[in-house]
Amino acid sequence: MPQNKQIHLDNRPQGEAQVSNFKLVVGETPALKDGEVLVQHHFLSLDPYMRGRMNDAKSYAQPQALGQTMGGGTVGEVIESRHAKFSAGDMVVGMGGWQQYSVVDADQMGALRKVDTRQVPLSAYLGAVGMPGVTAWYGLVKIIEPKVGQTMVVSAATGAVGSAFAALSKARGCRTVGIAGGPDKCKYAVEELGFDACIDYKLHQDASSLSRALKEACPAGIDGYFENVGGMVLDAVLSRMNAFGRIAVCGMIAGYNGAPLPMTYPALILMNRLKVQGFIVSEHMEFWPEALKELGMLVASGKLRARESIAQGLEAAPEAFLGLLKGKNFGKQLVKLI
Amino acid sequence: MPQNKQIHLDNRPQGEAQVSNFKLVVGETPALKDGEVLVQHHFLSLDPYMRGRMNDAKSYAQPQALGQTMGGGTVGEVIESRHAKFSAGDMVVGMGGWQQYSVVDADQMGALRKVDTRQVPLSAYLGAVGMPGVTAWYGLVKIIEPKVGQTMVVSAATGAVGSAFAALSKARGCRTVGIAGGPDKCKYAVEELGFDACIDYKLHQDASSLSRALKEACPAGIDGYFENVGGMVLDAVLSRMNAFGRIAVCGMIAGYNGAPLPMTYPALILMNRLKVQGFIVSEHMEFWPEALKELGMLVASGKLRARESIAQGLEAAPEAFLGLLKGKNFGKQLVKLI
Repeated sequence: MPQNKQIHLDNRPQGEAQVSNFKLVVGETPALKDGEVLVQHHFLSLDPYMRGRMNDAKSYAQPQALGQTMGGGTVGEVIESRHAKFSAGDMVVGMGGWQQYSVVDADQMGALRKVDTRQVPLSAYLGAVGMPGVTAWYGLVKIIEPKVGQTMVVSAATGAVGSAFAALSKARGCRTVGIAGGPDKCKYAVEELGFDACIDYKLHQDASSLSRALKEACPAGIDGYFENVGGMVLDAVLSRMNAFGRIAVCGMIAGYNGAPLPMTYPALILMNRLKVQGFIVSEHMEFWPEALKELGMLVASGKLRARESIAQGLEAAPEAFLGLLKGKNFGKQLVKLI
Repeated sequence: MPQNKQIHLDNRPQGEAQVSNFKLVVGETPALKDGEVLVQHHFLSLDPYMRGRMNDAKSYAQPQALGQTMGGGTVGEVIESRHAKFSAGDMVVGMGGWQQYSVVDADQMGALRKVDTRQVPLSAYLGAVGMPGVTAWYGLVKIIEPKVGQTMVVSAATGAVGSAFAALSKARGCRTVGIAGGPDKCKYAVEELGFDACIDYKLHQDASSLSRALKEACPAGIDGYFENVGGMVLDAVLSRMNAFGRIAVCGMIAGYNGAPLPMTYPALILMNRLKVQGFIVSEHMEFWPEALKELGMLVASGKLRARESIAQGLEAAPEAFLGLLKGKNFGKQLVKLI
């Protein structure tokens, strides 16, 4: 069996996560039992939710166990199979974790899914046509419920979720405004992702200043907001929400590393009769087929062309992950493993 | 025509509202035109939303105009009518305002409604079988959507809304826990209103302490919360919400007088996949008949016996209103005008 590099969680972060929280371990892949499949990973997905799992706190996700391989989404190729439905050469998506190979019990519901790479590139199944894409779809379609002509805003606009959100929102006839960090990302959001406007939050010192920029970009106010960051950005958006606006809370990355970030003026929820709803896409598997179908068509037709930031080699994963938490990535953050 | 005492908003509060913001004015009731009805008010309702209208800020309610009679719900008797559907002697509920008499254009939708006082006392149409009761009903039934066996919590538990909430929640088979200020209110909540437990927030200096008391009163966590106050109470309840909990935001009275009160840990909305939704009951008139029917039956059958705090005479209205904002009332705050 092949040698298998893995990255374990070695110790839990105190405040900001560090490279020293991780540890590279080299092992061997075990022999397959009946029903199992050996997958060689081509790409590993890095996602903000992983930061939450590094803590030992009560959260929606089970904490990542210490001394175990970090969990994570992967795409790759079946190398060997003792399962009737999988054969060597099949391209598959699964939750293989931060390692080069995984042995998967393919009878487990949802553990491994074959994908078609004729019109959609393999890596897209970790982004636009994967969990991030479905996340954008669920928040927009099931929580925000957009109507033609309304104004939608998303933070972390050029990330994997934000990119998909833009395509889905534009397809529904909505004015679509992004919030991102830096002029390059904002330019890319408008020129490549189809945003009608994109605001560089780094130009704004506080929520009032960002709120004024939002007023300009959203002259009719904001009807739907997809929240990835929290903190000052949430405060600013709240101040521009229209009556009966909906906020889908998918992430609050700004607060992942340390002290909780308050919502300064929750009374706005009442004044504007807002709905603010948190969700986790893995709890709504019943909508994945519908969402993946639309996302696959958007990618195949070229309407959703999400950028990827690709780190090379498993050893690069910790640095790339910490960069993701600081917004250093540009588009979907992946690690190429072969 | 009779002399008519009125209370006008004379000037807007700077911070805390004061008696000096109001002014007593004596006028006469004008002669009736066709379609109009003269009503002598028996009771005036005092409600927290009126504080918001005293400000000149953007809010869900139009600001109260300066130099005009304060708006407010009233019940009373028709003295004279030039409308075919109303006769002298009819008992009616309307929005007569802070005055002894009102002249009402009875053709205006919802301006005046006849009520039956055989099984439900007149004043109840301003409380349990009026706007506060429907407010509790809408928040519970349409936003929280309780299920048998779940745990419901309401703040300002012995007020008009809280009292109705308790009866409606118990009728749906839910453990029902109140939060109120002081041992007398808490005793009353449990012994008279049917709460399973009631927590005295005045015994708690901070959200952590209140959170521990909530844990004891709600051993299975909190599934639904009806928010009337905001601030520390909201922070404490948020820390005890179960996954997929629902929070109906009806009021944030703690922040009405001054600086905004932050929500300390909005990331809990995500972690517990909560829905937090603000609403104003007057925007959901389509549900009033259904709600009033249930509330009327609860009152007629003795299952909902809400206490009233009754101030005597229009001149007493400003003091009574300021007391209401500080929680000095005990049950529904009314002013008796005859």
